[in-house]
Amino acid sequence: MADNESVVVAGVGMTRFAKVPEGLRELAGQATSAALDEAGVTVAEVQAAYVGNAVAGLVTGQEMIRGQVMLRPLGIESIPIFNVENACASASSALHLGWQAVASGMQDVVLCLGAEKLTHEDKTVGMEAIGTAIDVEMRAELAEQVRWDGGEEGGRSFFMDLYAEMARRYMRVSGATPEHFAQVVVKNQHNGARNPRAQYGGEVTVDEVLASRRVVDPLTVPMCSPISDGAAAVVLMSGSAARRTGRSGPRIRASVVRSGNVHDRDDPTAGSAARAARAAFEAAGIGPGDIDCAEVHDASAPAELIVYEQLGLAGKGGGPELIASGRTRIDGGLPVNTSGGLLSKGHPIGATGIAQVCEAAWQLRGEAGERQVEGARVALTQNGGGWLEGDSAAMSVHVLTAD
Amino acid sequence: MADNESVVVAGVGMTRFAKVPEGLRELAGQATSAALDEAGVTVAEVQAAYVGNAVAGLVTGQEMIRGQVMLRPLGIESIPIFNVENACASASSALHLGWQAVASGMQDVVLCLGAEKLTHEDKTVGMEAIGTAIDVEMRAELAEQVRWDGGEEGGRSFFMDLYAEMARRYMRVSGATPEHFAQVVVKNQHNGARNPRAQYGGEVTVDEVLASRRVVDPLTVPMCSPISDGAAAVVLMSGSAARRTGRSGPRIRASVVRSGNVHDRDDPTAGSAARAARAAFEAAGIGPGDIDCAEVHDASAPAELIVYEQLGLAGKGGGPELIASGRTRIDGGLPVNTSGGLLSKGHPIGATGIAQVCEAAWQLRGEAGERQVEGARVALTQNGGGWLEGDSAAMSVHVLTAD
Repeated sequence: MADNESVVVAGVGMTRFAKVPEGLRELAGQATSAALDEAGVTVAEVQAAYVGNAVAGLVTGQEMIRGQVMLRPLGIESIPIFNVENACASASSALHLGWQAVASGMQDVVLCLGAEKLTHEDKTVGMEAIGTAIDVEMRAELAEQVRWDGGEEGGRSFFMDLYAEMARRYMRVSGATPEHFAQVVVKNQHNGARNPRAQYGGEVTVDEVLASRRVVDPLTVPMCSPISDGAAAVVLMSGSAARRTGRSGPRIRASVVRSGNVHDRDDPTAGSAARAARAAFEAAGIGPGDIDCAEVHDASAPAELIVYEQLGLAGKGGGPELIASGRTRIDGGLPVNTSGGLLSKGHPIGATGIAQVCEAAWQLRGEAGERQVEGARVALTQNGGGWLEGDSAAMSVHVLTAD
Repeated sequence: MADNESVVVAGVGMTRFAKVPEGLRELAGQATSAALDEAGVTVAEVQAAYVGNAVAGLVTGQEMIRGQVMLRPLGIESIPIFNVENACASASSALHLGWQAVASGMQDVVLCLGAEKLTHEDKTVGMEAIGTAIDVEMRAELAEQVRWDGGEEGGRSFFMDLYAEMARRYMRVSGATPEHFAQVVVKNQHNGARNPRAQYGGEVTVDEVLASRRVVDPLTVPMCSPISDGAAAVVLMSGSAARRTGRSGPRIRASVVRSGNVHDRDDPTAGSAARAARAAFEAAGIGPGDIDCAEVHDASAPAELIVYEQLGLAGKGGGPELIASGRTRIDGGLPVNTSGGLLSKGHPIGATGIAQVCEAAWQLRGEAGERQVEGARVALTQNGGGWLEGDSAAMSVHVLTAD
């Protein structure tokens, strides 16, 4: 391993996540321009772009050269542009590749962008597109199962079927109840109400969450992340280039990507997130106790509790107690998903991993407004994507520090 | 720029390119296993995988986690796996990212894989999927145009419409004729007949090529690369790891990716391939005169002549003379597309860029059999992908040496 260059997050930019009329070019343009502006970096200074997107081929008809199409209106066109796909971890995978280029000294200034357009006049299109993040053979089996149960297949991603199964297993091993899952929703909707870029947000009660329409037992609608459009971008600079040009910003101390492993299947709290977190802690030279705030992949509410354990924020079986204790609220000492998380902020899947890093940067810069974590110095983001037998297909953990 | 690690192509593997019943998993598995075997590398030694594929989402229904799905049957599952898309340059883009990881010292042993399944029971599916490599708005305009001309839109990629337009412009500036394009076909089919992995190959005449069915003026069917299935893989190792473990192989001396630029539009012989080639020559410390053999992106026959000029193998307007001279035949002193090129070997689009590097490796190792270039020491590959107004969306050039 080479001696890594320090990697500075010189600027971040993010659209509001919502169901919007704008297309992918507009969303990507807004986030990219904001990140470049913040960094004080011109288009001509960007040496390469790493672009995450998951479903544009299926939703907009644009496959293969999505980054080029999104960035050309900004005049970003002759540099290397890489289109990176890892389902809901597409953006964090793109970020990792950009980080790799800068940390290794190969490039000095890179753009990492995640953008997604999920809404479509035909509502089933976005949902079915998301379903292509599942192993196609496994998905066919899930579709069979839904038909046996008398369910409807059309417009179904099958992700919540998988999350529900995971939740039921987690309930058996940890004693978690649907009330615990609802507490995650209550916390994250409270936080989202304090985030001007969040799709939803507001004060809801555990009872309201439990009384909402059932999606798949034990998940109700508010326990599932919504369909969203949006984009998020970061400009990364090498420490030496930042020093030379007088830029500053939070630093990425660890960037890790792992894939799922069939052997993880029997323990919902082990798996790729736990492996990625261990590697990230080792690279950053810290432990779970050093984290001041975390953004985690709450694509469904139970996932947040499982991730508490995978990251070591709670011990084995300790997820339910941690949410119940209130410690993961903004002012609880160990705040998780201050942005509102995927549940409230929204989940434009190929943008999510970089949006998490935007929130981490704002927290570390003390610019998170009403949702600011006092004195935040160390932030962690965790972003998972896709589904194969046994685990997520891709899992990413980033650790950032204030300077 | 960091001092780069030397990057060794420790093993290569490639399926036969053809229309085959096998699916993506089988094709990817064959190529990967062959590359690992050649390199003497076990699955456990592979630290990361960079996987190029362009159309599986549209042809097989598997988007987003294609690399994970392709590699899991081989037991490659817990490492970072990146899905990289850059249209017909997907594989060379994946290769570049793998090279970047090794050259920078970040990783010691990586797998780069390109795989594509284009055939489908509905013949229009593959063609229409290829069309998503074009800017979706530009493609809509092309479809309009075809309708005005009374043409048929269904099952049309529109790529040959773009190549035909490029060919007509090139004819005006260089004096090239359809006979020159036919000479490219004659040469490449001759070479393909000597490549056991080529889809086609045989002795054809200029007159036969010209008399074949017209696709779009001036292109006839044999001037257009075919629909193919196939996969190609390379195992890259750092020079230090190769020395430590007693492996050897050709070296990658330059790996460059660029994107198209709207300003290139007026000169078909400038553009991203010329820029990428200049950067690659500079990185490798060589010039066009040092190349012993080249694999170039002859997705249509005229493209090969234009690329001669872009790479500096011919001067401006010198493409027609170079093909007519016979110098780019296997025994002509400056052999191009010894493998048969995309026209004869086939063009499973997301596999092509790595398949070119397989041919380069075989030539540099003296293992190219009947198509061996005597004493080949320096090889170049050029792979382009996608289309935006003015140029290819992605362009990659690699330079390899025998040791």
